[in-house]
Amino acid sequence: MSKTFEKLQPLLDKSMALQTARSLFEWDDQTTAPFEAADYTSKVVGILSDEYMKSMINDDVRKLLKKLQEDKEQEDLTETQKAIVRELGKTYEQLESIPPEEYRAFNEYTSIANRKWAKAKKDNKYEDFAPYLKKIIEFKKKFAGYRAKGNKKPYEVLLGDYDECFMIKELDTFFDKVKSDIIPLLKEVAKKAETVDKSYNYLSYDIDKQKEFCKFLAGYVGFDFNRGVIAESAHPFTMQLHNHDVRITDRYMENNLESAMFSIIHESGHAIYEMNIDDAITQTLVGGGASMGMHESQSRFYENLIGRSKDFWEPIYDKLVNTYPDNLKDINLDHFIKGINKAAPSLIRTEADELSYCIHIIIRYEIEKMLFSDEVDIEELPKVWNQKYEEYMGITPTTDAEGILQDTHWSYGEFGYFPSYAIGTAVASQIYFCMDELMPMDQYLNEGNLIPIRDFLRDYIHKHGAVRNTNQILMEVCGEEFNAEYYVTYLKEKYKNLYSL
Amino acid sequence: MSKTFEKLQPLLDKSMALQTARSLFEWDDQTTAPFEAADYTSKVVGILSDEYMKSMINDDVRKLLKKLQEDKEQEDLTETQKAIVRELGKTYEQLESIPPEEYRAFNEYTSIANRKWAKAKKDNKYEDFAPYLKKIIEFKKKFAGYRAKGNKKPYEVLLGDYDECFMIKELDTFFDKVKSDIIPLLKEVAKKAETVDKSYNYLSYDIDKQKEFCKFLAGYVGFDFNRGVIAESAHPFTMQLHNHDVRITDRYMENNLESAMFSIIHESGHAIYEMNIDDAITQTLVGGGASMGMHESQSRFYENLIGRSKDFWEPIYDKLVNTYPDNLKDINLDHFIKGINKAAPSLIRTEADELSYCIHIIIRYEIEKMLFSDEVDIEELPKVWNQKYEEYMGITPTTDAEGILQDTHWSYGEFGYFPSYAIGTAVASQIYFCMDELMPMDQYLNEGNLIPIRDFLRDYIHKHGAVRNTNQILMEVCGEEFNAEYYVTYLKEKYKNLYSL
Repeated sequence: MSKTFEKLQPLLDKSMALQTARSLFEWDDQTTAPFEAADYTSKVVGILSDEYMKSMINDDVRKLLKKLQEDKEQEDLTETQKAIVRELGKTYEQLESIPPEEYRAFNEYTSIANRKWAKAKKDNKYEDFAPYLKKIIEFKKKFAGYRAKGNKKPYEVLLGDYDECFMIKELDTFFDKVKSDIIPLLKEVAKKAETVDKSYNYLSYDIDKQKEFCKFLAGYVGFDFNRGVIAESAHPFTMQLHNHDVRITDRYMENNLESAMFSIIHESGHAIYEMNIDDAITQTLVGGGASMGMHESQSRFYENLIGRSKDFWEPIYDKLVNTYPDNLKDINLDHFIKGINKAAPSLIRTEADELSYCIHIIIRYEIEKMLFSDEVDIEELPKVWNQKYEEYMGITPTTDAEGILQDTHWSYGEFGYFPSYAIGTAVASQIYFCMDELMPMDQYLNEGNLIPIRDFLRDYIHKHGAVRNTNQILMEVCGEEFNAEYYVTYLKEKYKNLYSL
Repeated sequence: MSKTFEKLQPLLDKSMALQTARSLFEWDDQTTAPFEAADYTSKVVGILSDEYMKSMINDDVRKLLKKLQEDKEQEDLTETQKAIVRELGKTYEQLESIPPEEYRAFNEYTSIANRKWAKAKKDNKYEDFAPYLKKIIEFKKKFAGYRAKGNKKPYEVLLGDYDECFMIKELDTFFDKVKSDIIPLLKEVAKKAETVDKSYNYLSYDIDKQKEFCKFLAGYVGFDFNRGVIAESAHPFTMQLHNHDVRITDRYMENNLESAMFSIIHESGHAIYEMNIDDAITQTLVGGGASMGMHESQSRFYENLIGRSKDFWEPIYDKLVNTYPDNLKDINLDHFIKGINKAAPSLIRTEADELSYCIHIIIRYEIEKMLFSDEVDIEELPKVWNQKYEEYMGITPTTDAEGILQDTHWSYGEFGYFPSYAIGTAVASQIYFCMDELMPMDQYLNEGNLIPIRDFLRDYIHKHGAVRNTNQILMEVCGEEFNAEYYVTYLKEKYKNLYSL
């Protein structure tokens, strides 16, 4: 037993409580709070955020952390405690290297910049947002400069905030593979997929019935309603207070059958991860998912790898048809499976299919890399963006709103985030392949028995929270680190089968 | 401008933020949180509560408070600031006079006692709860002893926590009046009311339609949906984060039309109070209602004085009938008004009608008074309780569950709280009489124009929050302090008219 860690524990608990309160306010803001509440509630959240920062960054915590980082102290720590100390060290490194007044200035600036971005997108005027984007990048470069160690590039400092296992070298290898194999495939599939009639998806689907069916889907894949709730919000998301309180939201559109269904499966994937985290580490610094990419791997595992397969729908497609008999009685399962896997080059990332999704990410990654190595002017970005869409997708945005301005991330300074989405899908494919060698995945899905799948993910991935990183988890599950080969193989096999290429 | 107060402000803001977070967790627990969340969330709430206490009671705040209480400093304070200092002083007096370890022991004890009470009520075994009740009273006597100043009796210390304007003398006068005038009236009314057929109220009423109609009722009386939301919970309640975020809940029963409707009007009354509090004082120590009794006066003003009148229902009764035509087509407005005002002696406080309600309170008040002046043994309480019900109501509980064990308050140590309910109704009557002299209340209600009523309450009562106390508010509105005469007159006139006595 480490006496030093015992002293640290109540200080960490206080941080945890304040952070949980912030999460609850965030949840409440997105799902419940009345329209006019924001101005007054933001005062509350601002104070709680300050208190949270103070509870993390102070002399007491600093001293205990330094002591716990010493070799002698490390000997007395459990594996979990070591991981907590490591996470705390990262947070300190990240926050202490940036002068507080600069950090505050940055946060204030991005909250303005985000509104400017929203307005510029609405007005379709990139030039109104460009000066803000320029300044945000300057901020981020400076901050990354403070934190860069060894020969790490500024952009890699940012990438590391989302997943320490994926630096430029790893991502270049990954994305080169995707570009060479998937871009030609996408073009081939798109031609064939054009013939799939998907008009059934855009008929009128009663919202109450959608809610009921989505609730069924969540429970079907393993969402535990004793430990979680479903609500509505403008954009679906997952939020946890701890492993016994994990909440997801969905958005329902009357004229779109798929949207809410695949969102709920996606968010359920995130939620199952959080619900399966071990009781012993929930409410600690390692009580969440291992990384952005790892989290996304679980949501996409459920949404795409499982959720868009024929085996998954085999036992439940009748139930869907019976829920909307007028709309679906003439759509057989094969037709439906082709519909939910229709693929084509596209302009909007959030609406992209499984095949083109990664291309959207690659374009953002390549531009971010250029921005942080000064290879492109801010003014030139729309041109560069549109050229890349033309080159990789064969289509060009006609407006900046459907081009460079479509995503909110940069207006918050979130550079290095986008690759996580692609890592997630690729990791999901790799895990699926390994699981498929160990258990009869098709058979389980066909029988509607998702329990062994959820249990495997819990035991090998979820319960460990952030004690292990992405590659350590993959080593444990698959016996090898990240390998993009599985992802490319998965997409090739799936689409070749589906469209008899 | 007081420099001392300026220094105090951020410390008060921190308390406010932590208190608001506790409120949100409470709201969430009652309306949203999943079943298994409690064990882990209670850790969070425990830490936030500790932090809240520390943020209020500490050397920095104490020094500033003492200084602000000096005459010289008071000169520099605004009326609001003076009120804030006064409230803070009360909190200090209340918390600092009790040794922290005793206070903690008490809180731990009541949380156990509350569970014992729930079990004893379920098992109908008063003797299982009696020892806990005894110990709680000992705690409360001791605490009141620490705090009693001058010739204040221990019970008056407790009464003062809920409303400083109502000590034993005032309450005795009030309740003697009610006993002599209302008890005979109740017996007279009950006989006549028996003939009113209320079976229509217990038919099947579709829950979704109830929700829709209750939402309409809330908006109709003035609940502002831009500043508030309605949710469901086991027991209806109101909770505010600040004046721009006020939430109410309701409970819907398929076989009871009235229950949810009058609950929503009641809670809307509480909510309108909180929504109307001035922007300048929301999120401060005087940013809530003036007292328990004053708050209850507003909810009962809307629920009873307005909500159970024929004038109120005149413009909207057709809408109710059209919502449930099968059930209500043969019930005309006069019948309905008699139904919602049916009165009779009863055993359960929370289900009591307007006429018998106050008798329930008087019985509790008289017993609390006896308990705190050692005039009754704990073991004797059921007997005393039942005797009083027989004497005042003419009926005797057959079990302790429907007698002495029915309310949860005592298990939490909430003695002195019950009178607030009676004060509320009486204050509501007094305010109604004064308003009726100033504006054509009947006509406004008949026209469905509730805005002038809400505006009057806002300007004379609500916007001032807790800057003024109950009697100061009544002086402002009516030109006299509390006077129970109005209440008795109101009940007499109402029921004599209704039942042609």
